[in-house]
Amino acid sequence: MAAFRHRTKVMFQHCDPAAIVFYPRYFEMINEVVETFFDDAMGWSFRQMHEDDGLGVPMGRLETRFPAASRLGDVLDWTLTFPRIGRASLDLEIRASCGGEQRVRAEGTLVLVDLARMKSIRWPDGRRATLATYQEE
Amino acid sequence: MAAFRHRTKVMFQHCDPAAIVFYPRYFEMINEVVETFFDDAMGWSFRQMHEDDGLGVPMGRLETRFPAASRLGDVLDWTLTFPRIGRASLDLEIRASCGGEQRVRAEGTLVLVDLARMKSIRWPDGRRATLATYQEE
Amino acid sequence: MAAFRHRTKVMFQHCDPAAIVFYPRYFEMINEVVETFFDDAMGWSFRQMHEDDGLGVPMGRLETRFPAASRLGDVLDWTLTFPRIGRASLDLEIRASCGGEQRVRAEGTLVLVDLARMKSIRWPDGRRATLATYQEE
Amino acid sequence: MAAFRHRTKVMFQHCDPAAIVFYPRYFEMINEVVETFFDDAMGWSFRQMHEDDGLGVPMGRLETRFPAASRLGDVLDWTLTFPRIGRASLDLEIRASCGGEQRVRAEGTLVLVDLARMKSIRWPDGRRATLATYQEE
Repeated sequence: MAAFRHRTKVMFQHCDPAAIVFYPRYFEMINEVVETFFDDAMGWSFRQMHEDDGLGVPMGRLETRFPAASRLGDVLDWTLTFPRIGRASLDLEIRASCGGEQRVRAEGTLVLVDLARMKSIRWPDGRRATLATYQEE
Repeated sequence: MAAFRHRTKVMFQHCDPAAIVFYPRYFEMINEVVETFFDDAMGWSFRQMHEDDGLGVPMGRLETRFPAASRLGDVLDWTLTFPRIGRASLDLEIRASCGGEQRVRAEGTLVLVDLARMKSIRWPDGRRATLATYQEE
Repeated sequence: MAAFRHRTKVMFQHCDPAAIVFYPRYFEMINEVVETFFDDAMGWSFRQMHEDDGLGVPMGRLETRFPAASRLGDVLDWTLTFPRIGRASLDLEIRASCGGEQRVRAEGTLVLVDLARMKSIRWPDGRRATLATYQEE
Repeated sequence: MAAFRHRTKVMFQHCDPAAIVFYPRYFEMINEVVETFFDDAMGWSFRQMHEDDGLGVPMGRLETRFPAASRLGDVLDWTLTFPRIGRASLDLEIRASCGGEQRVRAEGTLVLVDLARMKSIRWPDGRRATLATYQEE
């Protein structure tokens, strides 16, 4: 089991008048971590998923803690693991830290859906096998 | 006890390639609900709070459910109430629905902080009294 | 000839660490002005245009000046007029001011396109007549 | 003379219901190109500039063309050069292309300002020398 890792930098566009990350921007970063995972680790880009396959992975639930603020210029180290892989769903555990200090702790569930019918569908076996590589024990 | 109410419309800028709200945009809307509450119901604009008073209300925790998708053009009816008012913290319950169907359920905690020292401070008594008007029973 | 008018407020989400509007956010506001014009003045919502009619109005050109900064809490008064209505294109003149001080001056061109073929198409006669109501002389 | 180069990828968060880049997102990318230039090429991070030095580089003018649409997953190659370096201002020429096809052409002017007084100030000589390295002939 290994966590998927991704690094982002806190840019001007993420910061509020207090010069710290405006929390809605963390959710764009979380989406980037998930999208990059699907592209790099699964070999399943969002372009192929959405346009060719007619599928999507909307977030149904997301619980977040922001134990400390992130400032302009901070480098955030993200990890992504999967506590549970369901029939059509996927539980996510996402963390961001900077210099060892935790900044974001998130737990969520996304669901694989057929976009035309907005119905959940089962993970294809090959995809499920790759997801399992990042499952927590 | 009354809920604070606010209405937003799902615009093009909120929508993803599936023509539904991209979930990070919900958090901008949630912030708008809170900011509008402070401005309209409390008479305490974020400009005054941040620039004149040197205070802020960062979100420390936010748990969200998205039971159904919102489409371009949908009108969202938001409600905001407070299950608990702490010394320096405030628990929030935020809901959005469209035509009676629930789209967002969020529970969070924000904290009043002195921005210069990034330390929590007690709600001033007058502010606390206004908050209590929106406390759930 | 009359200008289409729209009012927006500078919220926390629009502001950068200098507590003034981060200029990319102005373009979200400009899009909101145009989208609201199509919806309110033309009776042609972006939902109907994009989903039912398979059409879109991408911006091909946009020239902007920001003569003065806008601060958190400022109320912006927007005007929209059309210097020229082309076969498939539309020249826009967009202004935002606050308390009489000009904050944004923009001139652009959008084009009506068939989204499936990404080809420009002629404005339908009824739509063109409504656009002409907001044409500058 | 050399152009400063930067590469970005079109992510889900940049795309609209037509699955192409929503043009306000291009301005976030343009800001990222400029911010990365200051950080990497000038050794002057926006954090140092804004927080330590009390300076900023607001955009006063920006003229953009979008000759072709960018789709989800496209990789954009950005170049940045300076046609003119003023006393306190800087003219920018920014281009983005994908596989040789031009997607964005932008020309703008930013100004170095003292944030506390919102007054323009002269480029420090050392900074000006570095800027000149990227000046067009």
